[in-house]
This record gives sequence, structure tokens and C-alpha cells, in this order.
Amino acid sequence: MSECRATVQCVMLADDPATFVTRMVADIRVEIGGIPGDRHFGLLRPADSRQKIYPRGALIANRRQISIVSQEECELIAIHLGIPEIKPEWLGANIMISGLEKLTELPQGTRLIFPDGTGLICEGENLPCIGPGRVIETICNQSGLSHKFVPAAKKMRGIVCSIEREGCISRGDIIRIIGV
Amino acid sequence: MSECRATVQCVMLADDPATFVTRMVADIRVEIGGIPGDRHFGLLRPADSRQKIYPRGALIANRRQISIVSQEECELIAIHLGIPEIKPEWLGANIMISGLEKLTELPQGTRLIFPDGTGLICEGENLPCIGPGRVIETICNQSGLSHKFVPAAKKMRGIVCSIEREGCISRGDIIRIIGV
Repeated sequence: MSECRATVQCVMLADDPATFVTRMVADIRVEIGGIPGDRHFGLLRPADSRQKIYPRGALIANRRQISIVSQEECELIAIHLGIPEIKPEWLGANIMISGLEKLTELPQGTRLIFPDGTGLICEGENLPCIGPGRVIETICNQSGLSHKFVPAAKKMRGIVCSIEREGCISRGDIIRIIGV
Repeated sequence: MSECRATVQCVMLADDPATFVTRMVADIRVEIGGIPGDRHFGLLRPADSRQKIYPRGALIANRRQISIVSQEECELIAIHLGIPEIKPEWLGANIMISGLEKLTELPQGTRLIFPDGTGLICEGENLPCIGPGRVIETICNQSGLSHKFVPAAKKMRGIVCSIEREGCISRGDIIRIIGV
């Protein structure tokens, strides 16, 4: 098993029902259903266009409980879009890490272990959709950005994870990333 | 996405607290926590020697909710052991399928979809341990079989699955097996 490390730069919560945009908090508690209070919390969620093997809306196991992006990949997306920065909140991220090359390419099944023993399972790439592009276009007040986001963010938009072991995740945590 | 098919030969339940050995039933209901009444039911389970990244006994997400074996692989294990048959109940299996080559080698993330829409996620090979070997040794009344089981069953002892979509699984069901 390969092992490398990364640092938690910030943690965020999507607790405004009106938007997927997150806001920074000091730490997040994770339970088997996800992050309590976050819009993606739940053991089940309705299948969407990503799960074509199920009818749209069918309740399926929620393996998209937590979204993680990397500072380095956000910087690259910003360069591709020709804007000064991409804030992780605009992508609806719950965790931004740094110090890991190619977070988005982590294989499904990779484990992320936090200092208190909290464990996440990488469920694979978070495929970019137009939602964050629209947020970026509005905030940067630059038309056309929304449609540029999806190609610019491909393989750089981070990963989704499910919870394997409950606990707490805080800014500054060093994560052990353990390969399959 | 590749797709192939297999047939459910029988379904089984481990509802005797004294043993992991299963017994045949007409059908099994599966919920997000597994098969109600089965010894492996639960959203969480204690980490064991397979999950060395967690302290033994720590509660982690249960992705070993259902055990599936194949008739063809059971026949091969029996040949390796020099006995007439291996019954799926002796391995603690919940489902025995037929018509699929190399069930045990199905990649993690493969989906198994049943006629009513029930969905399972393949979580990978069920690594053989000595328990079923002891059962086989006792039933066949042939000493030494227990230690032969682990090497004889390697890459043929089937897979473990978690539930993605709740429903019912019955003998005779045709399963769609959808590759990652």
C-alpha cells in the first residue's frame, strides 16, 4: 500500500438551503451519513444523471457525502479560466487540501485518514457540471465563464468521498492518504 | 461500460447467532444496512484484521453486508480439496450465482442489478479465512481439510457487496453485471 500526505487548508459547510456554495467553519464533524447540517448529508440520495443504471430519482446509497478539492488544482483551473482565483466555496467543496499532486486522479477506494482516526473513502472524480461555472461567472462578472468551467475543470475539480469512520476534521490536519 | 449476466441459483440467510453458516430461504430483502436478520446486517461494523489502517474493533462503515459465491468456483474449490461438493451455506454465502466466469475477480465498483431494480456494489474479493475450512472438515469428517481451504479457495471464494438500492433478491433472478 502506497502512502502520502496532504494538509487540510480549510473546511466548509453547505448549510444554506438556497445554494450549494459552502462557507468556512472551524471544523466539521462527520458521521456515517455525512456532515450533519450539510446539504449532502444522508444515507440515501436520489439517483441523478450520473447513475444511468437507476431510474432518475430512485433512492440509492449516498457515496457523494463530502467534496474535496486541492489548492493546486483550483489554481490551475483559475489559470485556465484567466481569472485570479477559484475559491473552494464556489465549487461547493467541504475540504480544501494542499500538498498532494493530482488529487482528482486518486483511485476509487483510496483511504484518507485524519489525525483523530476519522476515515474517508475516495469515491472518485467529482465530474464538473455547470453549477459552479455559473457562480464563478456571476462573482467574476465575466460572461462566458460558466461554459468554460466544465472543460477547464476536467480532472481537476477534486473528488467525492464517503465516510468510513466517524470523527472530526479541522483546518491544519495532516491527512494520511493510503492507496488501494 | 461492459455488461454481462448471471443467474441467482439460491439465496441464504445467516440468522443462527451460533454460526456464520447460512440456510436457504425463498428470497432476501435487502436494505441500506444489509439483509435484516442476517449476522452481517448493520451500517457499521468493528474493524478486523482486514482493515489494518484502523484500530481493531473501531466502528467503520460496513461494506461486507452480502457475500456472493458462484457455483462454478465452488465446484473448483471442491476439486482442489478432493471432496464431492462445497455447499454455499458452508461458506456463509447469501447468494450463489451461476453463469459468470471468475466472479471473485470482479473489480471493486462493479454493479449487480436485479430484476426489481435492487442494486449491489461489488466491494471486492472475500479473502478466504479458516472458518469455512473448519466447517468443511467437520462435515466431510476428513482431517486436514481446514488448512487446505484457504489456499484452495484463493481467488475463488466469491465477493462481498454493499447495498446501493434496496429491494428483493430471489432464486432464479437474472442479474445484470455492469462493469466500472
